[in-house]
Formats: sequence, structure tokens, C-alpha cells
Amino acid sequence: MAKLKFLVVHGPNLNLLGRRETHLYGTETMAEINSMLAENCAGLDVELRFVQSNHEGGLIDAIQEAAGWADGLIINPGGYTHTSVALRDCIAAVGLPAIEVHITNISAREEFRHRSLIAPVCVGQIAGLGGYGYYLAVLGLVQLCGRRSS
Amino acid sequence: MAKLKFLVVHGPNLNLLGRRETHLYGTETMAEINSMLAENCAGLDVELRFVQSNHEGGLIDAIQEAAGWADGLIINPGGYTHTSVALRDCIAAVGLPAIEVHITNISAREEFRHRSLIAPVCVGQIAGLGGYGYYLAVLGLVQLCGRRSS
Amino acid sequence: MAKLKFLVVHGPNLNLLGRRETHLYGTETMAEINSMLAENCAGLDVELRFVQSNHEGGLIDAIQEAAGWADGLIINPGGYTHTSVALRDCIAAVGLPAIEVHITNISAREEFRHRSLIAPVCVGQIAGLGGYGYYLAVLGLVQLCGRRSS
Amino acid sequence: MAKLKFLVVHGPNLNLLGRRETHLYGTETMAEINSMLAENCAGLDVELRFVQSNHEGGLIDAIQEAAGWADGLIINPGGYTHTSVALRDCIAAVGLPAIEVHITNISAREEFRHRSLIAPVCVGQIAGLGGYGYYLAVLGLVQLCGRRSS
Amino acid sequence: MAKLKFLVVHGPNLNLLGRRETHLYGTETMAEINSMLAENCAGLDVELRFVQSNHEGGLIDAIQEAAGWADGLIINPGGYTHTSVALRDCIAAVGLPAIEVHITNISAREEFRHRSLIAPVCVGQIAGLGGYGYYLAVLGLVQLCGRRSS
Amino acid sequence: MAKLKFLVVHGPNLNLLGRRETHLYGTETMAEINSMLAENCAGLDVELRFVQSNHEGGLIDAIQEAAGWADGLIINPGGYTHTSVALRDCIAAVGLPAIEVHITNISAREEFRHRSLIAPVCVGQIAGLGGYGYYLAVLGLVQLCGRRSS
Amino acid sequence: MAKLKFLVVHGPNLNLLGRRETHLYGTETMAEINSMLAENCAGLDVELRFVQSNHEGGLIDAIQEAAGWADGLIINPGGYTHTSVALRDCIAAVGLPAIEVHITNISAREEFRHRSLIAPVCVGQIAGLGGYGYYLAVLGLVQLCGRRSS
Amino acid sequence: MAKLKFLVVHGPNLNLLGRRETHLYGTETMAEINSMLAENCAGLDVELRFVQSNHEGGLIDAIQEAAGWADGLIINPGGYTHTSVALRDCIAAVGLPAIEVHITNISAREEFRHRSLIAPVCVGQIAGLGGYGYYLAVLGLVQLCGRRSS
Amino acid sequence: MAKLKFLVVHGPNLNLLGRRETHLYGTETMAEINSMLAENCAGLDVELRFVQSNHEGGLIDAIQEAAGWADGLIINPGGYTHTSVALRDCIAAVGLPAIEVHITNISAREEFRHRSLIAPVCVGQIAGLGGYGYYLAVLGLVQLCGRRSS
Amino acid sequence: MAKLKFLVVHGPNLNLLGRRETHLYGTETMAEINSMLAENCAGLDVELRFVQSNHEGGLIDAIQEAAGWADGLIINPGGYTHTSVALRDCIAAVGLPAIEVHITNISAREEFRHRSLIAPVCVGQIAGLGGYGYYLAVLGLVQLCGRRSS
Amino acid sequence: MAKLKFLVVHGPNLNLLGRRETHLYGTETMAEINSMLAENCAGLDVELRFVQSNHEGGLIDAIQEAAGWADGLIINPGGYTHTSVALRDCIAAVGLPAIEVHITNISAREEFRHRSLIAPVCVGQIAGLGGYGYYLAVLGLVQLCGRRSS
Amino acid sequence: MAKLKFLVVHGPNLNLLGRRETHLYGTETMAEINSMLAENCAGLDVELRFVQSNHEGGLIDAIQEAAGWADGLIINPGGYTHTSVALRDCIAAVGLPAIEVHITNISAREEFRHRSLIAPVCVGQIAGLGGYGYYLAVLGLVQLCGRRSS
Repeated sequence: MAKLKFLVVHGPNLNLLGRRETHLYGTETMAEINSMLAENCAGLDVELRFVQSNHEGGLIDAIQEAAGWADGLIINPGGYTHTSVALRDCIAAVGLPAIEVHITNISAREEFRHRSLIAPVCVGQIAGLGGYGYYLAVLGLVQLCGRRSS
Repeated sequence: MAKLKFLVVHGPNLNLLGRRETHLYGTETMAEINSMLAENCAGLDVELRFVQSNHEGGLIDAIQEAAGWADGLIINPGGYTHTSVALRDCIAAVGLPAIEVHITNISAREEFRHRSLIAPVCVGQIAGLGGYGYYLAVLGLVQLCGRRSS
Repeated sequence: MAKLKFLVVHGPNLNLLGRRETHLYGTETMAEINSMLAENCAGLDVELRFVQSNHEGGLIDAIQEAAGWADGLIINPGGYTHTSVALRDCIAAVGLPAIEVHITNISAREEFRHRSLIAPVCVGQIAGLGGYGYYLAVLGLVQLCGRRSS
Repeated sequence: MAKLKFLVVHGPNLNLLGRRETHLYGTETMAEINSMLAENCAGLDVELRFVQSNHEGGLIDAIQEAAGWADGLIINPGGYTHTSVALRDCIAAVGLPAIEVHITNISAREEFRHRSLIAPVCVGQIAGLGGYGYYLAVLGLVQLCGRRSS
Repeated sequence: MAKLKFLVVHGPNLNLLGRRETHLYGTETMAEINSMLAENCAGLDVELRFVQSNHEGGLIDAIQEAAGWADGLIINPGGYTHTSVALRDCIAAVGLPAIEVHITNISAREEFRHRSLIAPVCVGQIAGLGGYGYYLAVLGLVQLCGRRSS
Repeated sequence: MAKLKFLVVHGPNLNLLGRRETHLYGTETMAEINSMLAENCAGLDVELRFVQSNHEGGLIDAIQEAAGWADGLIINPGGYTHTSVALRDCIAAVGLPAIEVHITNISAREEFRHRSLIAPVCVGQIAGLGGYGYYLAVLGLVQLCGRRSS
Repeated sequence: MAKLKFLVVHGPNLNLLGRRETHLYGTETMAEINSMLAENCAGLDVELRFVQSNHEGGLIDAIQEAAGWADGLIINPGGYTHTSVALRDCIAAVGLPAIEVHITNISAREEFRHRSLIAPVCVGQIAGLGGYGYYLAVLGLVQLCGRRSS
Repeated sequence: MAKLKFLVVHGPNLNLLGRRETHLYGTETMAEINSMLAENCAGLDVELRFVQSNHEGGLIDAIQEAAGWADGLIINPGGYTHTSVALRDCIAAVGLPAIEVHITNISAREEFRHRSLIAPVCVGQIAGLGGYGYYLAVLGLVQLCGRRSS
Repeated sequence: MAKLKFLVVHGPNLNLLGRRETHLYGTETMAEINSMLAENCAGLDVELRFVQSNHEGGLIDAIQEAAGWADGLIINPGGYTHTSVALRDCIAAVGLPAIEVHITNISAREEFRHRSLIAPVCVGQIAGLGGYGYYLAVLGLVQLCGRRSS
Repeated sequence: MAKLKFLVVHGPNLNLLGRRETHLYGTETMAEINSMLAENCAGLDVELRFVQSNHEGGLIDAIQEAAGWADGLIINPGGYTHTSVALRDCIAAVGLPAIEVHITNISAREEFRHRSLIAPVCVGQIAGLGGYGYYLAVLGLVQLCGRRSS
Repeated sequence: MAKLKFLVVHGPNLNLLGRRETHLYGTETMAEINSMLAENCAGLDVELRFVQSNHEGGLIDAIQEAAGWADGLIINPGGYTHTSVALRDCIAAVGLPAIEVHITNISAREEFRHRSLIAPVCVGQIAGLGGYGYYLAVLGLVQLCGRRSS
Repeated sequence: MAKLKFLVVHGPNLNLLGRRETHLYGTETMAEINSMLAENCAGLDVELRFVQSNHEGGLIDAIQEAAGWADGLIINPGGYTHTSVALRDCIAAVGLPAIEVHITNISAREEFRHRSLIAPVCVGQIAGLGGYGYYLAVLGLVQLCGRRSS
């Protein structure tokens, strides 16, 4: 069976993780999360590729490009979670299974962070578990692909 | 009399037309719409130029640039229809007559698609008539320019 | 192939066009729009019939009656656009393809004109292009019927 | 004891029952409902009269007229349920006990159908039980009139 | 100087005045109000014509017709006050000065009666003063016409 | 043909009927309603079982249990009508046809009583007809089961 | 019969009438309105007293004081119309019949001017008829007092 | 180091999993989820205890009791997610780290399911990943306890 | 004169007082509050009984039972304050005078705690004064009963 | 230990108590409440001073002045409860512990009386217990000061 | 050229600056701000006058009076920012250019502080820059007057 | 002491200043504003750098880059003011003091311009003072940095 290939999409300002409001987001950097993911996934027969952009259009470009090779998406849309219909439309358009991840528990923050425009077009959502949440999303996506293929 | 020149602006994800949720958007691709427009406009003494971008800023850049040569805009703002004040401001700023086009009947879809931030600064709106709506928009713009110049 | 037959439905106060708030609605009368339509449609193998009523029930009666002979509806529901569930139900009930037309760009007017109760049961909407919008609607309906029959 | 006399009021588009969106409204026609009612009420010592109109004002005229002879109203206001203050005022004005009936379960449909302007001036409401709901309304009205007179 | 001519428009259910919820609307009938008006206006060099309809479209028809002869409108739109964009558009379209009258103090009743769609296109509003409010409206309209002509 | 078996579910405080705000709920007790139902249903070949609980979870337990034997539900959810997603989910989960009943006309009471969370997962709703409404619900359910089985 | 005595209450900024946004409020000063009222009421056997204050508390003090001698109130609460529960409570507390007057048609102005906190505790409201509206209010109050005493 | 002990809390109707709207919730039963969890956690040095109740108060009782022995909570509050302040208060009161789990992607369902009253007092939320989401929650809680203790 | 008998109703999680978020709720336990009440009421000729439940239905059961012997209720509905129509209906149904008590100043906490569904059917509300508020409620109830009986 | 000194602040229209809508506010006058308070507090080693004003600014002036000598505030803000940010800011600014008192149960009155702008900056609120509520507030404040000082 | 004359208007509670919630408002007193302004403006050929009042009406009186001599207003409306239509009307009425100043960043505080009723009738707004913001407002007003006169 | 270094961030369409809706935005170009700033700041020992982008992501990139060298931000987010959570997050993330500037008085324009998503994470806001507002923002930032360092 071929390796599963997932695109991990980091939205705006996630490149600042580790330096950014550490009382909220913790001290782990994006690079450290990516390394942890690569390491943890070594035994899962999964290939991960990573992208980060502060540009809404950049995220859309990357997801459209992934439609050609990826089996699924792990996406932390950052601030675009609450404002981007274009990103939502993109995920719906490419038709890949996607899991939305948030470092923080967005339900416990400002009112405007409670609504995700992205979640309804994803398979599911994981929030509040820090960088570890990305790893759980990978597991979830693996399980999901397996479930589908079986 | 000089040819009328219009910019046709395709917003985010319209480059996926024909492959994207075809039960909603149909099977016509963006390239086919552009060809149909070029062909249909042959007899209208109208010159069309085309742009597509997934970037809100890219659309704004293109419209600002068009202010130097175009007589009007035909714009399908895609997901930015409902979220972009910047795009709205751009259209108001350049002062070109614009017609908003949507492939689908946005009034019949999710609640958040019912409000267009763009429509109030356009001359009008055409929705739900597929790629053919772009052609009707060209006709409308031609008629409008004629009405103004007379 | 038989001629396509469409009912053009003018809602309340459209009989005042040309005299009514001309800064908003222009100087073209309803009779002139109807003549223009008849003339423009001469070459389209389309037969148009016209009705105008200030009565919500009158519009419903007319549309119900058209279910017996028409292939489609072009409807400008005027003020009933924003208030009539009964008219909406009627269009859904007869099942004819319909295009909603507005002389003005309703998105640029009072808040209460931004919501159309009728649009969701139509195929699409054309707004802001004056009387010419009716003509574009006829073209749209012709194209639509063709698309369906093919 | 004199026969009870009720007016059965069918609102807009109910004359299309049986042909209209049958997945929602079923295949029973208005005439069949009226026949069923007449038949079922034969043993109840109740006289029913029927009216149908697509006109809000027509329904008001009919109810005002019924104030001279009827003991109660069974009314399906159709689309006017959600929009007609005038009809509501009429029912309150004539002072007859009324039961609102809906073929479909309006609570399970579009948001705008969840609010009835008519129900607050009626004795009660029966919804979702098809044409049979009219019959239950007759029973309810009979029971109500009995309860009052005793 | 020619006599001023006003149309007094009674909306739905006002023909029931005097019998209708008298704790709210009082015991004066519509005919008595009309007589009182005729009598009181005898010395004012004003000619009044009267119309009553339960039909939204009927009121629109009457106002459109009045555009040919009247100098102003006194209108009690009844239940259409809160629901009729079509009636609002009609008053704006004919361009006659209008004063909205209500028998009761609508601000002190149900929430949905607090918003008038009609008032913004009228010169003013008089509410809560019973049938006498119509007379005050006539005085207001006379004063207004005088003020304009002087 | 086997007897139809229905569970009649009385929600919180319905055990106080007859003593509780009798100007709203009348003087009939829950026991009297149950007796009336048993008596009226004698000729209908219907078996009724009854349950009353003030506990949201108790109502859910009872409905889950009924899934093993009942053909339908008649439920007056009392105060849980407006607040219980869990009860709603339960009715949807067991898949039995259900009719919601209310003693009073909830549309004519406080604003928060106008929305039923339960009604959308029921077949229909009967409100405002006192204890007699339960009987009409039984008739409705019988008719419904017949309609389905035929 | 004793003279009727009314307090005319001018709220904040009404002392600027005639100089203040004359396109909205006209050129008539408060003094001129008071003179006109005094003059017009000469034949009515009515005594008017006047008060103006920019202070919410000042208006309340004046109305409380008037409870000792006045038969009614004519009040233009100015900006307090939309914000003062205290003024509303005062009018309700003293129990004098009151008519609310506005120079302009507040329904046609900003959204926040559409709600009056004062109107529900008044007998009625007159708006949009300039200073002349005060005179109509006096007539209304006279008629009202007569109606009550007869 | 002592074993971590977690309480897995299944809310109302989760005992119906596998039989309940399987197009939404899948075919896995609650017992199967519990078995899968027990099995998967065998190697994690974690002890799981399970509780299911349809009673809001029952869930509160269980969580209060767990405060004496548990290191964390995995909770699927079912329908109480959206309605229970009492359950929210309970989780906040006992102070145990909790992860909210949902079988389905609640963001993609009815509007009223989009708001969780529980999530703000949890560490995080996992939704849309079926029964497997519980397992991810266990992993998350293990990681979290480790992170804290280190 | 007979002793007054009151039921003190502690809602969900109040059994955790003293251990629960002590920065919000203080360190006094429910048992200590009950003791203080018993002690303080010794001289008042008042008999208090106490109940605590985490079950909405349990609170309703207890209040219904109290209808047989109590002269009044002191109730802290905890989280059910904001969500329970059933509890509200229960208090209205039994008709006992009730005072709602809250340990904390709920107006200064989360938005959803600002609305009490219970308060409108109580005589009054005391909030923010800790356990001492219960004692003030007893005093209030004594005074109230006295006022009524005199 | 020095006597505690409290300012009792009566807001607008409270000087009308006893004469004002006695079905709502009772027959006790403000002077009688003040006397009752003075008398009841005789044994509490508390000194009370009183102020009443209909002026929002007057209440602010008085509270600012009290910052120099008072240990706490008992305030019934009357109509300013729902509209005065300035009063709220004043109480927050002076930093004295305050208890808000209302004669009536404001939760059971008009919707706009349900929100208090003042309560969030007070220690607590007592409502619905008539003039006696002021006395309970004094007790509460005494207890509060004691609790703090101990 | 004549000196520019500005009125600096300090709203309610600004006289407490320096003592009032210093974590929010800082330690600078109103007198110190006024001194700083006088000093900084020495070289600007500007004359400043100052007024402070806790009375809405007092602020209105002062602004009306300033209409006779001032060239502009610098106003910190304090709590009236969010509640005073009367103050807004006053500024619009006198027609002087005005700049609204706030010590704190009101956008970052409670929701109700986000809306200013005053700002729309001012030239602009400066917030969050402490007492120094008044100085910037003076500069802005000087620049504005210069721009106008040039 | 080292020079202060600020980044001046011009958002979308500000490159059109001077040509764009000059009745709203004036005739000053962005280049002229930058020159004016450079000139005015010459004596302030401040270094300014400038960036303009129509891209939300471009603005974020620039601000992230500035975190390495700048002491503060002056930002006019243009249309992104009202829609960009990502930009807001960026400013919060880099932790530089920022002042939001608007050419026009956004409070006096369309409703959707009244809410700034950016302002809550800035130190303050200056609006309505044209290009000069940028200069005031520089002054404010200088003062702020001084205040902090002292």
C-alpha cells in the first residue's frame, strides 16, 4: 500500500510560535512542531509536507496545488479561521479530507474566535492541545483514510 | 469610436471551475468561459482582458492597474464577495462601472453568502446563470457605457 | 422546435416607471420596456406575455395561470421582493424556471431591500441594469432552457 | 341546538395542493380535503363552508363576512402566516375562535416559517398532519364550542 | 385659490371600527369618523375623498389614481404599516405629501407594531388620538400646503 | 392487524395540572386527561401507556425504553420544549413518529415559549386545545400509521 | 368650567431652534412657536405654561412640579426621547395625559431615533409637522380632556 | 509513577450509538468504543472508568464523584453541550483537566450545535472523528498530564 | 401564630461550596451556610428545611413536595438559573412566594449569566452577598409573609 | 471601633414613592423608608445619610462627595439603572462598596429593565422586596465591611 | 490674524482623574492635563477655556454658550459618549468643529464602550493616548482651522 | 539615546490617495503624506520607514519583519480594519506599541466601518484628521515611548 501523503498548512503568524504571546501559545516553535510531527510519523508510513503563509491567497494556492498529490490536509488557518470564505471554498473545492487544528482553545477566547468558517467543510476539529494537536490530527487522518479504504 | 475595454476579474477558486463541486458550479471551466466570452464579444467591438487570482491583494492590484486603461469591470469576487472591504474600497476608488457576477444563485445558498460587500459599489449584479452570466454582464456594460456616452 | 413562451411579471408600482423617482428608476416607462423586449426578442423565437399588478394575490393568480403554458418567468416583484412568502411559495409551487429582475441595484439601497424572499426559489437574479436587465433575463432564460433541453 | 357553522379558509397556493412540491405537501388536493371534511363532519352536526384566495385582502374580506354567520374559523394562512399583520388583526377583530392549520410541520422548515403572526390570535395550532389536520381542527373547534356553551 | 383636495385612505379592518376590540379602538365607526371629518373641514375649503380597502393592492391602486387629482394623503395603513414595502414605494412614487394616522398609540402595543415602513416616506405621523387624529392630520396637511405655497 | 401502541409522555409539572395556574392550564388534571384518552381510545384499537417525569433524563430514559415496543409518541415536553437538545436528540434517535402537544397556545405566551427545539424532529404539533389536544394527537398518529402502512 | 392647564415641555437643544440645522428643523424659533401657541390657544380656553431645559433631571423636576396644577403635558423630549428611562418613569408616575411632539419626522432619520422610550407612556405622538405639531397636540389634548370629562 | 486515571463521560443518547441515525453517528456502539479505548490504552499505563447517563444531574454527580480519584475527564456531553450551564459549572468547580469529544463535526450541523457551553471550561475539544476521537482525547490528556508534571 | 416554614433550595454544584473556585464563591461551605441560617433564624420563629440536588428534576420534585407544607422558598438555582424553563414553571405552578439568591454578583460575570429565567416568577432577587444573602432572603420572606397577613 | 457611615442614594422619581403607580411600587413613601431605615439601624452602630436627585449628574456629584467620608453606598438608581454609563463609572471610580436596590422585581418588568449598567460595579443587588430591601442592603453592607475588616 | 479659541470639555468623572482606577486612567489629574495644555499651547496662538461637569445638561449648556465665541471643541464626553443623543444633537446644532478625546483605548474595553454616539458629529476621534491626546486634539483642531481658512 | 524607529504601514488602496473619492479622502497623496511626515519628524530624532501593500499577508509580513528593528507602528489598515483577524493577531504577536490611523472619521460612515478589529490590540486610535493624523500618531508614539522609558 502506498504511503499516505498529507499537507500540513500553517496559517498566518504561526511562524511566530514560540515567541508570540507565550502565555497563550506556549514556547514550542513551528519548526519544533514540524520536527515532532516528522519524528512521530516515522513509524506511521505517512509522508508530511509543510507550508506556512501569512497570505490568504498563498494558503489557497498551496491547497490547490496539493490537490494533485495529497491524501489529506491538516490545517491551522490562524486568523483566517474566522474570516475566510475563500479558504473555506478552496477546501470544499479540492475535496480532500481535512482536519482543522488550533493551538489554543478558541472557544475560551474572544467571542469572534468562536465561529469557524473553515470547520464546516472539514471532517473535524482539534483545539486547545498545543502543537500536540497536529499529531493527533495526523492520527485522525490516518485512521480516517484507513476507515474509508477498508 | 474606440473599442470598449473591460477587465474580467475572476476571484479565488474560480480557476478550479469545472472540477469543483460540479453539482453547484457546473462543468464549464474558466478557460471555456473566457473563450466563450471572447467569441461572443467578437461582434461587439469590445476588448476583454482576463485576470484570476486567489489573492485579495492580487485582485486589488489588478483593478488598480486597470484604472489606467479599462472602461469597466466584470467581477466575480468568489469568496471575497462576503468578506472584503478592501476590494469594495478598491472598486469605489477607481470609479469604473462594475458588474458583479456569480456562477451560482448565492441567495439560495448559506446565509453568509446572502450579503455582498461588493454589490453596493457596483452598478448591478447577475447571479445564478452560470458562465453565461459573464456574457450578460458584458452586454450590460456595453449598454451602460452607451447610455452614458449618449 | 416550438417557440419558448415566457411570462414577464411586473410587480407593484412598476406601472409608474418613467414618472416615479426618476433619479432612481430612470425615465423609461413600463410600456417602453415591454416594447423594447418584444422588439429585441423578435429574432429569438421567443413569445413574451406581460402582466402587471399591484396586488400580491394578482401576481400569484397570474403565475399560477402561466403554469399551464409558460416555459419560464421573468419577474420583478417590486416591493413584494422583500415581504412576500406567498409569492415565493407560488414560484416554488409552479416549478417554472424564473429569473428575478430589479431596475435598481437593491444592494445599494435601504437595508430592508437587501434581502429577497423570492431569489432563493429563482434560478438567478439580475439587478441594477435598468429596463435592459429584463432583456438580459430573457437571454438567460433562453440559454437556460436550451441548456436543459440539450 | 343549532348546527355549528365554521368557515374553512385556505390561503394562497393551497389551490395547488396535490400538484405542488408533493414531497412536502403530499398528493391530496384541496378539493379532496374539502370532500373528506364534508364527509367526516356529516355525523358531527357541523356545517362547513369553504373559501380559497391568493389575496391577503380576499382572505380578510371573507373572514369579515363570516363574522355574520360563523361560529368559528379553521384557517391555513399559507405564506401569509409569517407576514400578515392585517390578517392577524382581522381575526382578532371579528372575535371568532380560530384554529390555525398547516399541512407541513413548519417548525422543521426554513427559519422564516417558524414564526406565525397568526397563531397568537388563534385558540391553537395544528401542524404537520397533512389534510387530516383540518379534520382535527374541526373536532377541536366543536369541542371548544361545546366547552364554552356548557 | 383652488380648494385643496385630499384622499383619506383607510387600510384593512378599519371598516370594522366601532365593533372591533373597542377597548383598544374605541366605539367610533369609520363612517362616523368620515362624517366628523367632512363636517369639521367644511370651513377649511378642503375637499376630502375617502377610500377603504382590505387589499394592499387596492390601497396602492387608489393612491396611484389619486396622483391625478389630490394635493395630499391622509393614510391609516392598518396592519400594512408594518409589512408593506409596496405601499411605501407607492407613496414615494406618487410624490404627494402624506400624513400617517393611527387610532391607537402603536408604540405602546406589540413590538412588531413599533416599526412603520410607511412613516419614513410620509411627512409625519399622528398616533394614539383616535378618530380625532385624522382631523389633526387634515389640519397639518392644510398648514403644510400653505407653508409650501407661501 | 396488531393494536397500535403509543407512549404518552407528560413532561415536567404536568402532574400539577388542574391545580396549576388554572386560568392558563384549565382545571382538568393529568389523571383525568389520561382517563379521557383511555376511554376515547377504547374504540380505536390503540393501546396507550403513560409516563410523567420532571426529569429531562427521565423522559429520555422512558422514550429510549419505548423504542422497544411503541409505534409512536405523544409528547408534551413542558418546559423542556424550549431548552432540551438532549430530548430532541432522543426522539430523532429512536425514530418513532411523534406528535408534540401543548395544553396552551404557546405562540400567544412569552417570547421564549415560541421556539420549540422538539417540534422539528416530530411529525407535527398540536397546541392550545387543552387536554383534548392529546386525543387529537392520538387520532393523528393513528391516521399517520395507517397512511404509512397502507 | 375651569380652564384647562397644560405644560409645554421643550427638551434639550430646542432653545436653539431657528439657528440649528435649519434644513432639518426649519427657521422657526422656540419663542415663535410659544407665541404661536399662545395666540392660537386664545380662543380655546386653555392656559399654557412653558419650560425648556437641557437637563434630563430638569425636565423631570418640571413635570413632577406640574403634577400639582396641570391637566396634561405636551412634550418634545428631544434627544432624551431615545435614551431616558427616567423621563419615561416620571411621566408614568405623575399620571397626566401627555402627547409627545417632534419637529422632524424621526422615523425618516437615523435608526436610533426610531425608538421612543417616551411614547409608550404617552397618549399619542405627533411627528414631522414642525412647530405646528405642538398646536395639534394642544388640540388633541383638549379633545382628550373633553372626551374624558364627558 | 502512578497510573493516570481518567473518567470517560458519555452524555445523553450515546448509549444508542450504533443504532442511532447511523448516517450521522456511524455504526460503532458505545460498548465498542469503550472496548477499543480499553484495548488501545493497555500500553499507556492509563486506567479508564466509564459512565453514561441521560440525566444532566447524573453527569454532574459522576464528575463530582470523580474529583476524588481522577486525573482528568474525557467528556462527550451530547445534547447538554449546548444547553447546560450546570455541567459547565461542575467541570470548572472540580478543576480537573477535561477534553470535550464529539462523534460528529458539530460545526457542520444545525446552528444551535455550533456553540458549546462546555468547551470554554475544558482544555480543548475534538470533534468529527467518530469514536476514534475519544482515543485521541486520551492521548491528549496523557500528554497534557505529562507536560504538567514535568 | 404558627411558625413560618421555608424550604431552602440549593441547586447544582452548591454542595461543592467552599472547595469550588474560592476566589469566586468564597470558602464557606453549604453546611456552614445552613448552620448559620439555622442559628440566625432561631429567634425568628421560622423553621427551615434544606434540600440540595444536581438534578433539575430533583429540584422540581422537591419544590412540588414543598407545596404541601411550606410558606415560601429561598432558592439558589445555580446553573439552572439561566437555562431552566421547567424550574421556572414549577415555581409559578406551586404559587409559593420565592426569593432567588446568588452567592456571586451574576451581573458582573459572563454574559449568559445576566439573564435569569427564574427571577421573573420570584418575588425578588438577592445577589453577590455570599452565604449571607440567604439570611437576608429569609428576613425578606418573613417580612413579606407578615406584610401579606397583616 | 468607629461607626460605619453609608450614603443612601435615591435616584429619579423615588421622591414620588407612595403616590406613584402604587400597584407597582406600594404605598410607602421615601420619607417613610428613610425613617424605617434610621430606626432599624439605631442598634447597628451605623450612620446613614440620604440624598435624592432626579439629575444623573446630581447623583454623581453626591457619590463623588461621599468618597470623602462614606464606608459604602446603598443605591437605587431608578431609571438610570438601565441607561447611565456615567453613574456606573462614578461608582467604579470612587471605589466604595455599593449595593444596588430596587423596590420592584425588575426582572419581571419590561425587557429594557432587565439589564443593569450599575450592577456590575456593585458588590451585589437586591430587588423586589420593596422599601425593606434597603434595610437588607444596610445589613449586607455591614456584614461586608465586617468581613473585610476581620 | 485673531487667536483661535477652543473650549475643552471634560465630561463626568474626569474631575477624579489621577485618583480614579489609575491602572486604567493613569495618575495625571485633570488640573495637570489642563496645565500641560495651557503650557504646550502657549506657542500656538491658541486660547483654551476649560469646563468640567458631571451633568449631561451642564455639558450641553456649556457647548451652547461656547457657540458665541469658540472656534472649536475638544471634548471628552466620558460616560455620555455611549448614551447621550442630546449631547450629540448639541454638537451638531452649534456647528463647531469638534474632536472627541478619550484617555483610554475604548475599543479595548467593555463592548458597550465601543460605540460612540458623539463621534459621528465630530471631525474625528483620538483615543488611548492619555492626557496627551488632548494636546494632539488641539494640534488637530489648529491644523483643521488653518486648512479651512486657507 | 538612540533614535526611535517607527514603521508607517499603509494598507490597501492608500496608494490611491489624492485621486480616490477626494470628497471623502482629500487631495493629499500618500507620497505627500510621507514627505510631510519625514519633514515634520526631522526635529524629533525619529526615523520613519514606510510600507504600502494591498495584500493582507503583505502587511503581516512587513510587520513581522519590523519586529526586528522598530520601536513602534503607525498603521492605517484601510479596509482590513474591519475584517482582518490575521492582522490583529500579528500586531498582538509582535508586541510593538501601535497607533491606528484613519484619514476619515470612520464612525460617521457605513455601519460596518464602525468596528475595528485592529484597535483593541493597539495603544490607541486617531481618526478623521486626514494625513495630519499620521503626524499626530508619530507624536503620540514618541510621547508613549518616552513615558515608558522614564
